[in-house]
Amino acid sequence: MARVICITLNPALDLAFELEELALGTVNRPKHAQLEAAGKGVNVARVLAALGHDVVVSGFLGRDNDGPFQLAFKHMGVTDAFVRVSGETRINAKLAEKSGRVTDINGPGIGVDTAQVASLLDTIEQQLNDAPADAILVAGSLPPGLSLPAFSELLTHLKATGVPLWVDTSGEALLRAIEIAPEAVKPNELELADWAGSTLESHDSRVNATTRLYQAGIKQALLSAGAEGVIWVNTCGAWQATPPSVQAVNTVGAGDTFVAGMLHGLLSQQDKEETLRFATALSAESVRHVGVGTTQADDFSLLLQRTRVQHLHASHTEGTL
Amino acid sequence: MARVICITLNPALDLAFELEELALGTVNRPKHAQLEAAGKGVNVARVLAALGHDVVVSGFLGRDNDGPFQLAFKHMGVTDAFVRVSGETRINAKLAEKSGRVTDINGPGIGVDTAQVASLLDTIEQQLNDAPADAILVAGSLPPGLSLPAFSELLTHLKATGVPLWVDTSGEALLRAIEIAPEAVKPNELELADWAGSTLESHDSRVNATTRLYQAGIKQALLSAGAEGVIWVNTCGAWQATPPSVQAVNTVGAGDTFVAGMLHGLLSQQDKEETLRFATALSAESVRHVGVGTTQADDFSLLLQRTRVQHLHASHTEGTL
Repeated sequence: MARVICITLNPALDLAFELEELALGTVNRPKHAQLEAAGKGVNVARVLAALGHDVVVSGFLGRDNDGPFQLAFKHMGVTDAFVRVSGETRINAKLAEKSGRVTDINGPGIGVDTAQVASLLDTIEQQLNDAPADAILVAGSLPPGLSLPAFSELLTHLKATGVPLWVDTSGEALLRAIEIAPEAVKPNELELADWAGSTLESHDSRVNATTRLYQAGIKQALLSAGAEGVIWVNTCGAWQATPPSVQAVNTVGAGDTFVAGMLHGLLSQQDKEETLRFATALSAESVRHVGVGTTQADDFSLLLQRTRVQHLHASHTEGTL
Repeated sequence: MARVICITLNPALDLAFELEELALGTVNRPKHAQLEAAGKGVNVARVLAALGHDVVVSGFLGRDNDGPFQLAFKHMGVTDAFVRVSGETRINAKLAEKSGRVTDINGPGIGVDTAQVASLLDTIEQQLNDAPADAILVAGSLPPGLSLPAFSELLTHLKATGVPLWVDTSGEALLRAIEIAPEAVKPNELELADWAGSTLESHDSRVNATTRLYQAGIKQALLSAGAEGVIWVNTCGAWQATPPSVQAVNTVGAGDTFVAGMLHGLLSQQDKEETLRFATALSAESVRHVGVGTTQADDFSLLLQRTRVQHLHASHTEGTL
C-alpha cells in the first residue's frame, strides 16, 4: 500500500441533470438530478483509495459549501487536507438530454491569493512530516488568482520535497509544468504537439515527441493518444497500449482513472507492461458508465486480456529524433 | 416586533448562471454563477427579519448540503428550526442569457415520509412552547412523499395551535389549503378562477371571487391580480392596490415580498390601507432587481407615494355575489 497526496487546485461540485429534452426559455423538470464532489485530483483519489492505498486529498475548497466534499471524502476513506477559502466552490452544471447531447456550464472557480497558496504548501509539508508519501499528484485547471508563475513556484516547492510529482493539467499550465520536469505528465496529442512545436500525425511522430518529453526530464512521459491508446516512454524504453473496444457512455474520469491505474502499478512495484495494461483496462472500464473505473466489474479480467500492450523499443535515451 | 414561523416544505438551492448565450452541446463558461438558499418561506423570512421581526425558519432540509442554508440563516439573523432529512436539498439551475431568455431546470425535491412530517410538527410545537408566535406561514410547493391528505392534516394541526396560519402555495395544494380555512391565502387570478369555478375577466368578478374566498372563512383573502395589482378582502371591507410602474428585472420573490409586507403591517398593528400600500410598494421594489424587496432603497418613500390604494367598499360579509 502506498501513500499518495492528490491535489486539486480548482475542484468543483458537479450538478448533473438528466432531461428528456432541454426546452429553452421555460421551466424544465429533470428526471434525475445529482450533485457530486468532483475535480481531477478527487477522481484519482477515489480510484486509488478503492485500490487500497492511503490517500490524502488537498487543494482549495470553498468553506461555504464543502458539505458534499466532506461526505464524499468520508465515503472514499481519504484524509481531507483541503485548505478552506472564503466563499463557495464552483458548481458545474451538466445537462444531459436523451438524444445524447450534453451541455456543460462550468463556473469560474473560487479565487485564491498568495497567502492561501502558502497555506497549501504548509499543509502538504505537515502531511509529509506526519508520514512519508510515495507520490504527490497535482491535477486539473488553475483557480482564478493563481498565476502561471505562482503555479510554477508551487510545483517547484512540491518537487523540492523529493516526493515524485505527477502533474495532469492542460494548456499554458501544462507547458509550465513540463519546464519544472516533474516525475510524470500526461498530455493529449494536441497538447504534446503544442509543446513539441509540430503536428503529431504519424505513429512515429507521436513516439518521437513522447520520447523528447522523456528526454526533457519527465521520467514517466505519457501521451494519451485517443483511439491509438497510450504511449509511455520511461528509462526502460517505450510502450504502447491499445484499449479494448467498449461502448463509450461517459468519458469524463477516464484520464483520471488511467493516471490512478499508472500510480497504482508503479507504486505497487508491478512490472511496467502489467502496469500499463492495468491502467489502460481500468480506464476503458470507466468509459462504459458515469464515474471512475473499478476493478469490481464482472468482466474486468476480460478487459485486461483484451488490452494490447506492445514494447516499442528498449531505450530511447539514445534514440534518433 | 412580532414572532413569525416561516415554513418551507420543499426548499431549494438556487444556482443562477449569467451567460452571454447558451450554446447547446458544448462547454459554456458563464460570466457569473451564484448559489443561494431559496424557497418561498425563506424569502418571506428574509424580508421579515430585515424589517426587525423575530423569525424562525422551518420545513425540511437535506442534511448533506445544508451549508449554504446555515450561512444564509446566520446572515439573515433567523432561528434555524428546519428538520434535517437524509440526502440533498434540490438545486434549481437558472440559466439567464443576455437576450433576456431564462431557462429553469428545477429538480424534483427531497422525499419526506410520515415520521419526518411528525417531526416537523414536534419542532413547531417546541418552538411555540419556547415562545408564543404571532403567525405561522407555510409557503411553496409540496415535497415528493407529502401527499395532499397529509398536507391537509399538517395544516389542520398547525391551525389547531391557534396561531394565525398563512398559506402561500398553488395548484391542488392551494385548493386543499382553502378547505382548511387558514387566516390568509394569496392565489393568483388563474388559481382563484380554478377555485371559484369561473373565469375572472372583469374587475367585478375578481372582487366577487375574492369576497367569496373571504366568506369561505379566509380572514385575509388576497388576490394577486397581475397588472391590476392586489385585491384584499377582510372583515372591514375590500381594498385594491395598484403598484407604481417600475422597470421589471426579476419578478422572482415579488409575491414573497408582498406576503412579508402584509404580515409586517398587520402584526405591527398598522392601519389596513397603510399595510396594503407598504406591501405593494415593497413588492414593486423587489421586481427591479434579483432578490426580495428592501425599504433601504433610496426612493422607497416615492414608491410608497406612487402606490394607489382604493377602498372598494366597507364590508362584504353581506355583499351580493
